[in-house]
Amino acid sequence: MSLVSFEKAAELLLSMNNIIILCHANPDGDTLGSGFALCRALKALGKRARVDCSCEIPRKFSYLTDCVFNESFEAENFVAVDVADIKLLGDEYAKKYENKIKLNIDHHGSNTMFAENTLLDSSAAAACEVVYELLAHLGVEANKAIADCIYTGISTDTGCFRFTNTTAKTHIIASKVMEKGADIEKINRLMFETKSREYMRLEKLALDTLKMYFDGRCAVLTIMQDMYEKSGAKESDTDAICAIPRQIEGVQIGASIKQKAENRFKVSLRTHAPYDAAKICAAMGGGGHPRAAGCEIFGSLDDVLDELLKNIEASLED
Amino acid sequence: MSLVSFEKAAELLLSMNNIIILCHANPDGDTLGSGFALCRALKALGKRARVDCSCEIPRKFSYLTDCVFNESFEAENFVAVDVADIKLLGDEYAKKYENKIKLNIDHHGSNTMFAENTLLDSSAAAACEVVYELLAHLGVEANKAIADCIYTGISTDTGCFRFTNTTAKTHIIASKVMEKGADIEKINRLMFETKSREYMRLEKLALDTLKMYFDGRCAVLTIMQDMYEKSGAKESDTDAICAIPRQIEGVQIGASIKQKAENRFKVSLRTHAPYDAAKICAAMGGGGHPRAAGCEIFGSLDDVLDELLKNIEASLED
Repeated sequence: MSLVSFEKAAELLLSMNNIIILCHANPDGDTLGSGFALCRALKALGKRARVDCSCEIPRKFSYLTDCVFNESFEAENFVAVDVADIKLLGDEYAKKYENKIKLNIDHHGSNTMFAENTLLDSSAAAACEVVYELLAHLGVEANKAIADCIYTGISTDTGCFRFTNTTAKTHIIASKVMEKGADIEKINRLMFETKSREYMRLEKLALDTLKMYFDGRCAVLTIMQDMYEKSGAKESDTDAICAIPRQIEGVQIGASIKQKAENRFKVSLRTHAPYDAAKICAAMGGGGHPRAAGCEIFGSLDDVLDELLKNIEASLED
Repeated sequence: MSLVSFEKAAELLLSMNNIIILCHANPDGDTLGSGFALCRALKALGKRARVDCSCEIPRKFSYLTDCVFNESFEAENFVAVDVADIKLLGDEYAKKYENKIKLNIDHHGSNTMFAENTLLDSSAAAACEVVYELLAHLGVEANKAIADCIYTGISTDTGCFRFTNTTAKTHIIASKVMEKGADIEKINRLMFETKSREYMRLEKLALDTLKMYFDGRCAVLTIMQDMYEKSGAKESDTDAICAIPRQIEGVQIGASIKQKAENRFKVSLRTHAPYDAAKICAAMGGGGHPRAAGCEIFGSLDDVLDELLKNIEASLED
């Protein structure tokens, strides 16, 4: 359970074979980009490796996986990418891989150090920045496919360079992977410029629920299960919708309440500085980054809204 | 009427004093970022300079102008920034400054070479990239205020690094101005993350007009004058709305028709490769970039839609 340097992480990977790379559940561009970039690098080194995830990979990421990664081999070593807490692997996987992760490559300041070795750079905007830096230590040069993976993770975790986690280094890595042939036209179109008609219907339904609180300093929208049926959209379509409440002029704290099941809700919080989304969510048993965090709350929608607003109010008054 | 090198452009500027820097009408982040960056650089060199524009500067750009630029002096030299055609200065200014522009700094491939000297880099994503490169030739180092200007132009003209005009060099310049202190948190929030309640009302009204054509390969929305009254929004709020049609899955060509006056409409076109927005708009008397262009059409809304769809259909069949 120790932090390791890039050199040590590379040494560990170079000593391994038959490697399973684990992405977090509800996989996003950063965990998948990290996983597939690392997998391609390990295969370039002549190793057997594959990516695994407890959830299905959303179809829009298929350009990352369009290569044979399903060769079968007996797994010997387990590496996690972009996983802040073993719980985030999903219930079943978390149990299965407890105390078995040899190396975790991550960028979350909230990392629980569940792995035997953790390569952590909490100043990195994305785990893909850490993986990119690791490539040099592995002696692997990024090809176009790896460049696509790295660009995907960096662009999705920074909202395409909009979020405050973006640094000068983020732009330098973006520039480097563009030079290696990252297809930013395709990736940006798929990640940011494509809204399905189902998404647009869900967005309209969600916007109808939008309510303002605390003199317009907080906005909350709600997505109930029946809206997925009405719109034809999926839960993975909600990411962009969750960004909307904070985008309204004057709003400091924007929240989205998504019904997961009867009496079970996922709250996504986005804040402007200095309001700390991770701190507000931690008070409700969740966590995340200073400007974007989440938690689960059990109870009726009214209960959830009460608890959420109580915690938001405390933060606004702090 | 000649193209000039960076060296020659710098030499010209260094030989001038009492300089008016002209931005295009309906000023955006790039023309304003270029104008104020250049103005600050010229003032750092001990020259008298100010920025001028035929239109009011939208309030959201006030952080660019928060410095005394209104000192009075008798204008001797006129420089344009991000102006592809003298018409784009606005009717009155175009007449007033005809044959008087000594230097034009631009990045539009469609530049009409109306100035005595033109510094043109059509591979640049933004005129601000050209201005940034010019700074070194002027012997001026970017300070925080100049960095804010440059970042504003680059980020707004690339849709925050999403559009296909973004290059590896764009990211390198972004990284450099971040190191000089560009406040990307504030700028991105103002440019991309802030939607007024008026905007949100206008977006809803505009989305209600959205129609699909040619088997979903084209989407068109319409913004009529009365929608500004109903929503309280302004025409400068429409930029983000114009991006929506192309964002719908399967759409190759997205169009927005904005009523400017009775029987007078502005069309904004956004395409995915290989469809050429500039070519389609050129056929209707307009111009622009391959993926984003515009034109004005006179007639009833039905007439405008007919002409627009006829030209879009021709392009889709091409």
